[in-house]
Amino acid sequence: MLDWQLLTQVIPKWLEVSRKEASFGKVATYIPGLAAAPQHTLGISVIGITGEEIHAGDCGFMFTLQSISKVFSLLLALIDAGENRVFEKVGMEPTGDDFNSILKLELVDPGKPFNPFINAGAIMMASLIGGNTPEEKSNRLLRFTRRLAGDESLTWNESVYESERKTAHRNRSLAYFLKDNGVLLDDVEDTLEVYFRQCAIEVNAKQLARMGMILVNDGKHPTTGEQLIPRRYIQITKTFMVTCGMYNGSGEFAIQVGLPAKSGVSGGILALIPGQAGLSVIGPSLETKGNSIAGLHLLKTLSHNLQLSMF
Amino acid sequence: MLDWQLLTQVIPKWLEVSRKEASFGKVATYIPGLAAAPQHTLGISVIGITGEEIHAGDCGFMFTLQSISKVFSLLLALIDAGENRVFEKVGMEPTGDDFNSILKLELVDPGKPFNPFINAGAIMMASLIGGNTPEEKSNRLLRFTRRLAGDESLTWNESVYESERKTAHRNRSLAYFLKDNGVLLDDVEDTLEVYFRQCAIEVNAKQLARMGMILVNDGKHPTTGEQLIPRRYIQITKTFMVTCGMYNGSGEFAIQVGLPAKSGVSGGILALIPGQAGLSVIGPSLETKGNSIAGLHLLKTLSHNLQLSMF
Amino acid sequence: MLDWQLLTQVIPKWLEVSRKEASFGKVATYIPGLAAAPQHTLGISVIGITGEEIHAGDCGFMFTLQSISKVFSLLLALIDAGENRVFEKVGMEPTGDDFNSILKLELVDPGKPFNPFINAGAIMMASLIGGNTPEEKSNRLLRFTRRLAGDESLTWNESVYESERKTAHRNRSLAYFLKDNGVLLDDVEDTLEVYFRQCAIEVNAKQLARMGMILVNDGKHPTTGEQLIPRRYIQITKTFMVTCGMYNGSGEFAIQVGLPAKSGVSGGILALIPGQAGLSVIGPSLETKGNSIAGLHLLKTLSHNLQLSMF
Amino acid sequence: MLDWQLLTQVIPKWLEVSRKEASFGKVATYIPGLAAAPQHTLGISVIGITGEEIHAGDCGFMFTLQSISKVFSLLLALIDAGENRVFEKVGMEPTGDDFNSILKLELVDPGKPFNPFINAGAIMMASLIGGNTPEEKSNRLLRFTRRLAGDESLTWNESVYESERKTAHRNRSLAYFLKDNGVLLDDVEDTLEVYFRQCAIEVNAKQLARMGMILVNDGKHPTTGEQLIPRRYIQITKTFMVTCGMYNGSGEFAIQVGLPAKSGVSGGILALIPGQAGLSVIGPSLETKGNSIAGLHLLKTLSHNLQLSMF
Repeated sequence: MLDWQLLTQVIPKWLEVSRKEASFGKVATYIPGLAAAPQHTLGISVIGITGEEIHAGDCGFMFTLQSISKVFSLLLALIDAGENRVFEKVGMEPTGDDFNSILKLELVDPGKPFNPFINAGAIMMASLIGGNTPEEKSNRLLRFTRRLAGDESLTWNESVYESERKTAHRNRSLAYFLKDNGVLLDDVEDTLEVYFRQCAIEVNAKQLARMGMILVNDGKHPTTGEQLIPRRYIQITKTFMVTCGMYNGSGEFAIQVGLPAKSGVSGGILALIPGQAGLSVIGPSLETKGNSIAGLHLLKTLSHNLQLSMF
Repeated sequence: MLDWQLLTQVIPKWLEVSRKEASFGKVATYIPGLAAAPQHTLGISVIGITGEEIHAGDCGFMFTLQSISKVFSLLLALIDAGENRVFEKVGMEPTGDDFNSILKLELVDPGKPFNPFINAGAIMMASLIGGNTPEEKSNRLLRFTRRLAGDESLTWNESVYESERKTAHRNRSLAYFLKDNGVLLDDVEDTLEVYFRQCAIEVNAKQLARMGMILVNDGKHPTTGEQLIPRRYIQITKTFMVTCGMYNGSGEFAIQVGLPAKSGVSGGILALIPGQAGLSVIGPSLETKGNSIAGLHLLKTLSHNLQLSMF
Repeated sequence: MLDWQLLTQVIPKWLEVSRKEASFGKVATYIPGLAAAPQHTLGISVIGITGEEIHAGDCGFMFTLQSISKVFSLLLALIDAGENRVFEKVGMEPTGDDFNSILKLELVDPGKPFNPFINAGAIMMASLIGGNTPEEKSNRLLRFTRRLAGDESLTWNESVYESERKTAHRNRSLAYFLKDNGVLLDDVEDTLEVYFRQCAIEVNAKQLARMGMILVNDGKHPTTGEQLIPRRYIQITKTFMVTCGMYNGSGEFAIQVGLPAKSGVSGGILALIPGQAGLSVIGPSLETKGNSIAGLHLLKTLSHNLQLSMF
Repeated sequence: MLDWQLLTQVIPKWLEVSRKEASFGKVATYIPGLAAAPQHTLGISVIGITGEEIHAGDCGFMFTLQSISKVFSLLLALIDAGENRVFEKVGMEPTGDDFNSILKLELVDPGKPFNPFINAGAIMMASLIGGNTPEEKSNRLLRFTRRLAGDESLTWNESVYESERKTAHRNRSLAYFLKDNGVLLDDVEDTLEVYFRQCAIEVNAKQLARMGMILVNDGKHPTTGEQLIPRRYIQITKTFMVTCGMYNGSGEFAIQVGLPAKSGVSGGILALIPGQAGLSVIGPSLETKGNSIAGLHLLKTLSHNLQLSMF
């Protein structure tokens, strides 16, 4: 079990060592909202299911969820559409390819995305969230994340949303491909609006770690005990976090760190320490596969020293 | 040289034999404007550069150019943007793949279409046609085809255009992919409008054979001698008609027929008999690769009996 | 924790239910040694790290390890060549593709196999086992499996080995591809001999479950406490068993069963119940991805009813 | 028609200009027999069907046919096995991919090579040549090339043959892949022996141009009129020379030069001037696609100045 007292002392030190790694990565620049993030930002929050908390570094730095939102849209799609419907629309297999590869869509008959964490799969999940309009769906997902974060102030970064919407040609290409294959039934632009909005939800490491803690706690509210998410859906989601949570670096992450996790291009990583705590790091400088370079270093340090791997 | 007197007698007989092949193919059904074409329609027109003409079967049947328009948009892009600019945007290699494959775009760095006759390449050519607006470009291409057909009545089939625009998810996917790669610089919807309009230009076999005759005549008007298209651009276009004119059946067509040709999903085929005549067949029933099944049969019969192969 | 008394009663019943599934699969037929296996054979063995054992059905049926041997060749390659050398030669990523796909080798620069459990990766691992000749390497691996099984009688099925060697054109193709890329440095036929021999090691479910139990016991002999395999190498291997152990059905297996596992075309499956027991099923009738169809059904039943998923 | 008197004067000048291009390419180095060729070697021979001859530069330099031999093995396979049998084993489509790509074999069901000029296709053609042993087949092909060259001295370069045999891992990989798919029925090593021997036939530009002249002369001996090759088989072969003769630079060559041609990694190119002459250039320095860089330059110069394109 985690020794919280020890952790309170060592984590800030480890964080400063990992922060140096940021020099070897690059901040995403395709939209201004991401490009503005300082390269050496690094923060971590760990929140235990029995109430312990550790926060170090820039854990108040606000960042957009980006691909981390795929965890929550998958959960909500499972809740709203059910397991069968979800797996009519996406597969269960990891790919080893780039997160936004069209190649894989073509090689698999009939164009069904490999899993819910590649962009094409996440676009499908956005279409399965309950609601009659993009606004309803987006608001529903926002409320869901607010409940998990225990913070009603969570909202979208409008400027990031607008930038994404304007420049997301690759995602549009993917969505029209899904539409052409008859996998996506909804309107393309409507579905993309939901997808871009979910990517633009803004959090800090503290809020995100709290969301992770609920997942670790089997979907139950830590004090009221209310079941916010069915256990089975958390199990499915955690499995995908292990097999495809870190883009085409997921296999390496499973070996080097061994925790369910999901990263985003903003430099955030959500990780789960089974049975114990939710964890979040933010470090905008990315390695070549799109994961936070200093964040990865810090997670490896933690996993190695504390024997956190589930394997 | 073609024996026109003999041809006048035998072509109608050969046509009736080929017409039976239509039973083994299928009319395209993805839009109503194509699905309505009678399966056993078959017409042929041959127009010599010295004025001879042969017309048989349903040569007055009106059909939209569809992919045959790629011949004329390539020519106009060469005229308007020049050879260098054209080959900055598309390659020169045949592919062996489906006409609308995204796969090939991903395997080739940096997402430049393989050639101007696959859909992605043709979309790029549409963007290179001169004009400041989609309307100007579309009108410019229409006038170009009218001049080649020697017929000012040529125009778009508006209902086919509208249907294409609404259902062309795959082409939208391709265009956004090109946009994402930085190959397509223009607005996606503007470019697609030009592309859909060119596909919707309506002709009959007589008009199309006349257009082909101008190409065979090295781009010169047959009576005035005016050079409508530079010789070099015709040479380039004829080469692509040999290497990639019949989708992923181009290699087989080169061996079985051996003429520069371009087919469309409406069942039309434009073929060139070098030094002698332009030729067009229309037969809406398609084989699995998207070419007119009866049209192919008729062209094989002609090539075999008259020794027309250029090889 | 497993209720062994209860299990002793329910497992034989569950096994008979699962046995019926064998009708919906097919026994591998590419070599006589596999084709001879009775379709409805089904056996299971579970061996706990504290000595409990359950055996039901055809758990004495002898079968060849086939791809299950990849678990042991990876472990031995790690022991003999070290972690760094192993990951110079194979990647860590799952693929979603067929187990013997050449495609993936070409798309990844420079032809390094994606992971040690696809055939190309396993061939590389065979080349890393210590020894100067194929005989030395093969004997070394055999002794390793004997020690894990606690049974000196384990040996190769010579007739299966001979058949594999003669018909394994796809594996030869993969090996020459690796040789051409400069990834495989040893002689191709020498390396394949080691690989074919490891596939032909013959076991029954009891012996294989015992091998799995050692892995679950962190590589330690259950009574002497001797460390047969370093803990770190077991961790690496278990991770690959989760992400790529069941061919291109690994993702689905992780969600439906949630245990580290490895299957083979003979119908065997080795599975690990972390912290508790090694488990093996044998059922030669395969589903389309190459896994035992009745074996999968039985594992799903166990996981579902006993809540065995690690996720 | 070619002005032979003029050509005799200008070709030596053009050759010296093209020779300078050799500096920008690289001689193939994968076997010693090729690596030894002087980079700036450049020779050309043109032989007309009515007896005219022009030779300039290093036209006596001996080089191995390499991929140029695919022209002759295709012709002999057509003669020995017939058109139907040949096209049961290879397709007719160009690919746009590398000459030895395995990728294309996997994407096409059921592993039939795209055309007879990619390596996999040429290996299939070697298996169709008449004869009961590799020796018989190899000797049969050698005699065929001797008859076309009108020179009984043609033979294999044994040292090049031996080197190829030892290092051709990629070709072995391709052949085993074909064997696995059930396309190649013969023994792999036997078939490769025929293939490696055909690649090792040694010629100079004069002999090769003479071979080309027979093809241009519709397969007839220029003085005796004997039909050495049926006209139909020459037509098929010429078509492939246009669509796939220059590796994945075939499309560009068709546009820039416009002649049926086939190149080899030794730096040789065989080209046909329809109705007039056989032509051969040798220049061992290669561009990135594997074609003679100075040879390409010289052919472009000739085609441009003499308007030789068939398009």
